[in-house]
Amino acid sequence: MRLRNKPWAQKLVQEHPEAILNQPDPEKKIDWKSRFDDFSKPLAIEIGSGKGQFITTLAKNHPEMNFIGIELQTTAAGMILRTKLEEGIDNLQLMCADAANIAMFLPENSADIIYLNFSDPWPKTRHEKRRLTYKSFLREYQTVLKDDGHLEFKTDNQGLFEYSLVSMNNYGMKFDFLSLDLHHNKSEIAQNNVETEYEHKFAAKGNPIYCLHASFK
Amino acid sequence: MRLRNKPWAQKLVQEHPEAILNQPDPEKKIDWKSRFDDFSKPLAIEIGSGKGQFITTLAKNHPEMNFIGIELQTTAAGMILRTKLEEGIDNLQLMCADAANIAMFLPENSADIIYLNFSDPWPKTRHEKRRLTYKSFLREYQTVLKDDGHLEFKTDNQGLFEYSLVSMNNYGMKFDFLSLDLHHNKSEIAQNNVETEYEHKFAAKGNPIYCLHASFK
Ligand SMILES: C[S@@+](CC[C@H](N)C(=O)[O-])C[C@H]1O[C@@H](n2cnc3c(N)ncnc32)[C@H](O)[C@@H]1O
Ligand SMILES: C[S@@+](CC[C@H](N)C(=O)[O-])C[C@H]1O[C@@H](n2cnc3c(N)ncnc32)[C@H](O)[C@@H]1O
Repeated sequence: MRLRNKPWAQKLVQEHPEAILNQPDPEKKIDWKSRFDDFSKPLAIEIGSGKGQFITTLAKNHPEMNFIGIELQTTAAGMILRTKLEEGIDNLQLMCADAANIAMFLPENSADIIYLNFSDPWPKTRHEKRRLTYKSFLREYQTVLKDDGHLEFKTDNQGLFEYSLVSMNNYGMKFDFLSLDLHHNKSEIAQNNVETEYEHKFAAKGNPIYCLHASFK
Repeated sequence: MRLRNKPWAQKLVQEHPEAILNQPDPEKKIDWKSRFDDFSKPLAIEIGSGKGQFITTLAKNHPEMNFIGIELQTTAAGMILRTKLEEGIDNLQLMCADAANIAMFLPENSADIIYLNFSDPWPKTRHEKRRLTYKSFLREYQTVLKDDGHLEFKTDNQGLFEYSLVSMNNYGMKFDFLSLDLHHNKSEIAQNNVETEYEHKFAAKGNPIYCLHASFK
């Protein structure tokens, strides 16, 4: 998804360094403690948050947790930021950056959950390394996640899901929950599902939604 | 699949002990060497062969390999036996038995491939242990397979496929090939696919065919 550049979003991002880290310097340690009321709460991170429907909904529903949304595109990040500011979502911080080296931005063993929702599929084999479930990304997630943390991945893209199952299995990850049709699944996990923008759009088209929860245990 | 009892099939099975082992005694070692022209050829085993379309086709196409079809129901086993005898398929042996303890019937590290095709789904949780991808079955396959051997699993049953992915992953198996729609997959594996009776029927209905190749490495 490439969003058209929105000047207001760029401006908003620049005006709110307390709420969003804009292309932070990987060499400088981020003081996360100062960015949250209580950084000792459980932490969830979403990578590729898009316009932010998922992460803002979760953050509002779970004041007992902290959330970080990471998004590559400034326009999308600005749209999440607007929601955060308008709705006063204090337990959500944003970062406009490439997740390829999130382990440089976040403390080791700090996150309870990492969410990947409808990540770009990069269907061409020569782009394999850009897929957010490629092994170099998994290594970053492993570093950032606590020992008992886990990854939650949703997509409607068949090729990306097939690829990710093999990639995560080959990396040695343990599958905890798997559905090939989350919206017709009767488990508690499925009942508590929070939709993303892409999910809403593609489920309405009749696409099945694939879901995997996996850990590095 | 429960087939109606066919007396001719029972009779045929009894008349051909050289071609089919009928409920062999697990305490007695089977002399497989004497049952094949050359037991040193690569060995493939199918579990739950049904009427045998898959295993008889493969055996005819691959004279350089040996095949064993294991089937619980005498009527189904008798139907495979009839094809074998009529078409003179010498590199195929049959066994009418429950695969739950195949490691008692087959030498350790003897098989190159084990095929599971459209295994009974046993959807109720209390029947989990009967599923051919339950961990106790996986342990049997691991014993029978050579170190570089692998399992090939096909089904159209979503619940069974979801279950099996988690079960095989949790057992520590390595995924080598995975498709959520084998009949629209462009890989060589998909191009060389040999259909089973169930596959033919369910693909014609428009069901996607799920496929996983995995090993114990
Ligand atoms: C297809 S959209 C999905 C958006 C949202 N998660 C949803 O489900 O509606 C993928 C998003 O991931 C972002 N993205 C892709 N690669 C990224 C990366 N390496 N780091 C951070 N964000 C990335 C894109 O900019 C885009 O906004
Ligand atoms: C749904 S049918 C599929 C038949 C065939 N593989 C196909 O794809 O057309 C499943 C077959 O597996 C056999 N079967 C089920 N459990 C078995 C077991 N534990 N050992 C051997 N065969 C079994 C059944 O008798 C039945 O013939």
